[in-house]
Amino acid sequence: MATPYELYYWPNIPGRGEFVRLVLEEAAAPYRDVGRLPAEEGGGTPAVAKYWAAQAEGHPVFAPPVLKHDALVLSQTAAICHFLGCRHDLAPRDAAGQALTLALQLTIADLVVEAHDTHHPISAWLYYEDQQDEARRRAPHFVTERIPRFLQYFERVLTHHGGDFLVAEGLSHADLGLFQALEGLDHAFPRSFAKASRATPRVVALRERVRERPRIAAYLASERRVPFNQEGIFRRYPELDAD
Amino acid sequence: MATPYELYYWPNIPGRGEFVRLVLEEAAAPYRDVGRLPAEEGGGTPAVAKYWAAQAEGHPVFAPPVLKHDALVLSQTAAICHFLGCRHDLAPRDAAGQALTLALQLTIADLVVEAHDTHHPISAWLYYEDQQDEARRRAPHFVTERIPRFLQYFERVLTHHGGDFLVAEGLSHADLGLFQALEGLDHAFPRSFAKASRATPRVVALRERVRERPRIAAYLASERRVPFNQEGIFRRYPELDAD
Repeated sequence: MATPYELYYWPNIPGRGEFVRLVLEEAAAPYRDVGRLPAEEGGGTPAVAKYWAAQAEGHPVFAPPVLKHDALVLSQTAAICHFLGCRHDLAPRDAAGQALTLALQLTIADLVVEAHDTHHPISAWLYYEDQQDEARRRAPHFVTERIPRFLQYFERVLTHHGGDFLVAEGLSHADLGLFQALEGLDHAFPRSFAKASRATPRVVALRERVRERPRIAAYLASERRVPFNQEGIFRRYPELDAD
Repeated sequence: MATPYELYYWPNIPGRGEFVRLVLEEAAAPYRDVGRLPAEEGGGTPAVAKYWAAQAEGHPVFAPPVLKHDALVLSQTAAICHFLGCRHDLAPRDAAGQALTLALQLTIADLVVEAHDTHHPISAWLYYEDQQDEARRRAPHFVTERIPRFLQYFERVLTHHGGDFLVAEGLSHADLGLFQALEGLDHAFPRSFAKASRATPRVVALRERVRERPRIAAYLASERRVPFNQEGIFRRYPELDAD
């Protein structure tokens, strides 16, 4: 049997780790979610923090999530999703198609950074409460300009192929990433998301199509799924959503 | 003879297009820099803006740079560098090594976003002058916490392999990306960069090693190289640098 993958990510937030989990779950790849294991089994926050603090063995990591597999120590969410997607039939088979799928995943990653920075426009190392004035200035640009622009982009991609998924070849890691980003936007900015997504029916349908895949549905109903909360990327601060 | 690549990027800033140019130049790959061609040859800003405005043919693009090659229309800087790097021997040959190189390029891309947001902490669609108060609050976190953290990370990577380049197999697109990011940091934040890079001699040496490669040296001395200015990602606002 193949060695299980090991995922290292903070145990109490969905954050960027969730993008990796969705790929592992859809691939039905065996994995250990190390950050969520008890300390007696070598898990928990300290195991993840080792990577953050540059005290873990293997290839240096800038920040979690980290995917470990035999000698490979791979960081960067989009690189992990690309690597797993290519290995587990969640990407096209040719280099050009794989690069296009990666580009879609990177556009999702851009959206994620911008969503995060609505509540942390000054520094990720300060509390929200210490940058709330700036957040109230940044967020309106995100909810009125950027959310529609991102959603309309993915709508155009779906229209371009005319298919059910972002790449013509079928379900890919990019669809799983977009699903998670849409879940996050809906959680954090319910009013803005509802308004913007009225103009993007294909994006809305893709979200439901992913949600209903048997492995994803089983995962979402399980305790392995980490719910959104006020510590992650997608936080619900009603004062940052549109009126 | 192979079809030349076409790069679509804004003609007057180095920006993200420069990361792609460096890979094309080191690969000695024939390419047309469409944004910098005269309008009579179909070039200039309007040709690039078509992608921005979703009026270009082919796969939809969220934002330039765009690499066009036969039927392929690929966006996202890191995806383009990865695609070109794998094709032109500027990445390892195995999937794991290619993913590690991509992860390094993505960490450079994170640095680039953070450098940009020092002068645009509220919105990329507002002038610097309209978000200068917030910029003066954000930039100190970047120059005192983030620049050292990024440089020390790449120093650790170089130490880990013990080689001349970021990946053990030799020069890759990640080294070219790091070179450009270092040039940018030095241009925009000369005092902070000088201070932080004193602790990272391998990173400093890598920058010079890339600069002296014959094709890169010839490129940097040519008119094809777009210099830094006050419109791009890396701008010199002395008030945002450390004292």
